[in-house]
Parts: sequence; structure tokens; C-alpha cells
Amino acid sequence: MSEVCGSSNRIAGSSFSIYPMSDRFVEIIKSSLNEVETSKVWMKTDDVTTTVRGRMIHVFDVTKAIFLQAAKTGEHVVFQATYSIGCPGDSAGDVYMAEDNLAQNVSTSGLIDQEVAAKFSLYPMGGGNYMDVIYSQIEDMKKRGVEVGEAHYSTRLDGDGNRVFNGLEQVFQQTDEQGSSHTVMTVTISANSPSKKGGK
Amino acid sequence: MSEVCGSSNRIAGSSFSIYPMSDRFVEIIKSSLNEVETSKVWMKTDDVTTTVRGRMIHVFDVTKAIFLQAAKTGEHVVFQATYSIGCPGDSAGDVYMAEDNLAQNVSTSGLIDQEVAAKFSLYPMGGGNYMDVIYSQIEDMKKRGVEVGEAHYSTRLDGDGNRVFNGLEQVFQQTDEQGSSHTVMTVTISANSPSKKGGK
Repeated sequence: MSEVCGSSNRIAGSSFSIYPMSDRFVEIIKSSLNEVETSKVWMKTDDVTTTVRGRMIHVFDVTKAIFLQAAKTGEHVVFQATYSIGCPGDSAGDVYMAEDNLAQNVSTSGLIDQEVAAKFSLYPMGGGNYMDVIYSQIEDMKKRGVEVGEAHYSTRLDGDGNRVFNGLEQVFQQTDEQGSSHTVMTVTISANSPSKKGGK
Repeated sequence: MSEVCGSSNRIAGSSFSIYPMSDRFVEIIKSSLNEVETSKVWMKTDDVTTTVRGRMIHVFDVTKAIFLQAAKTGEHVVFQATYSIGCPGDSAGDVYMAEDNLAQNVSTSGLIDQEVAAKFSLYPMGGGNYMDVIYSQIEDMKKRGVEVGEAHYSTRLDGDGNRVFNGLEQVFQQTDEQGSSHTVMTVTISANSPSKKGGK
């Protein structure tokens, strides 16, 4: 919890969960994990959450791939994640910072055509000139076909799953690069919901 | 998204979701909502999230009650919420600040005996002397039988659902009262998981 946050170690991480609203949830989670190449991140799963740590590109690559594999089943699946950079708190996974920048799951994830509804909140807790970054990244997402709207306590995104994830990665990365010493982003992404958008 | 955050309007809010890992997820969510008295909060549900806004006591009372009602079904149910105070951004639900401080669901929630595993992160984004508050509140939780542990990017809590929720409300409230002008807390609470604690 908010220890002293240095800016020397730029290891990124995500604490995330996949929620398949299905009696087959265990099978869906396990098979999704099996489909994804995770050798470039530190990864640990317990009964509440899965944590991945490593270079930012791999953290997003792996989390996106696991979600898309689960969503591909056609079941109503929700992905919830907290991404963090700049406040390591511990050194687990530091060795994975030596990995290269070649994402391992781009080609398989890219084949998955999945509409999603998402909400995200960005908490740049270490200064930096982030508001302009957020606005310009949101404009970029719109150009790439992602629908952007305001929601309570968050920003709403609707569109293709790969594009939504890539937009989230961009806004997180740019916020970090603009000088926020500790950045947290929370994300909820829903696929195959039986509820209509905007409905009760 | 991080607009100018005033400290005049102390309306609290929560953007939350209930994830029953069951084919009956729609029925479980709907019946849980029906069991809970929500007349003292502003409430809106869409396909990604439910938002409640109002006095802090009612926001916690309502979210706790909905989760416990869903968990009571015995299905594996996960509750995920972002609590926020001090950065209203909008005025929806302001009129509910006139409600009294009598929580409506305490007696029914109190009857539900439910072990839970939780993780939470607290982001006090507006200053204040919060670290001492967090540590003393965590000590209080331990005294009330909640097991507290460290996790990546969060703090882990294990114990009775009512006690865990009450502990979370206390730490959130105390952080706010110690002068943080904008406080965000993210919470994930799991009930009836088939995974063993600490397992792979």
C-alpha cells in the first residue's frame, strides 16, 4: 500500500481476474490460460487474482490474450484488471525486465474478432502532465473506431477488443512517459453480455 | 477522469459489479438486487456496471447487502467495486445527501454468515495523513478476526463478510476524514470459490 515509490524500476504489472458467467468457469479460465504464451512475464495465480509482472508490452499482451481467448468461447465473460507501474513495492519478476520487446500473442489475439464494452479509470498519482495525454489518447482511440463516452467514475469504451486493449495500453504508457512516477489504471471489459448497452 | 476535485460535496459513490460464475447469473443478480433496500441511494445499472451514490453509510450498506445476498446462493460469486469520494464530477444523486444515517440493510445482511477472501487497494489522491490511518485500521480489522496479508498491488483480507465490509468502510471513511480531498478504493471480494487459498 502506497510505500515510497521510486521511479528507477519501471516494471509494470497487472492484478487481474477473468469472470466467465458460466457453470464451466473453471474450464474456461484454465483453457484460456493454456492458449497463451506467458514465458516473458512473471505470473502467479491465487484464489482471488492473477498477477503478472514484467515489461509493459508483455503485461498487456498476456492480459489481452487471456481475455480474448476466454471471450472466444462465446460465454459472457468479464475481465477486471488493475495495471500499475512505478511503485514496485517488491522485486518479484524483476528478472523479466531483461526480456526483449517482441510480444508473443499478437498474432493469435489479432485473429479474435470480439466486440467489447469497457470502462477504465486512470489514476496518475505521481505528477506529470497527464490530462493532455489522456485527451489526445482518447482522440486517437476514436480515430481507430472505438466509441468513447463518459461514465460515473470512469470512461466508457465500446468497440473491437484488440483496439480497446491497444488504446488502453497507449494511454497507460503515455501517462507513464509524461512523468507520472506512479500510475494506476483500473479496467473492466465485458464480452457477450446478454444486456443491451444503455439498458436497465 | 481527474477533473478539478472540490472538497465541498462529500457525496460518496461506488461503481460495482457482481459476477456469479454460474449459468444462472442473470437470475442471481436480479434476485439479489430485489432483496436489498436501496431507497436511500441514487442507483443506475448498465451492461458493464452499477453505480450507487449517496451518503457513505448507505453506499456501503447497499453494496455489502447485494454481495451477501448473491453469495448466499452458494454459487461462486465475486464482487468488484471502486469506491470514490471527493471528486464528484457530476451532480447525480446529490439530493440523496439529505437522507438520514440509518442503514436499511444491516439487520438482513448481519444474518448472513459468509466467509470471504478479499483484496483492496486504497488510493488517497488528495493529500492527508493517511498512512497512519491505514495501519491503525488494519490493526482494528485484525482485532475483529479478519486475517490481513500483503499481496501484489493490494492488501489481502480473509474472514467473515460482514466484518470485511465493515473494515473496508472504516478505512475508507477514516482516510477521507484525515484530509484526503479525493479518495479511491478498489475492492475485489470472492465467496464460495472452489480454489483453495494459496493454491495455484
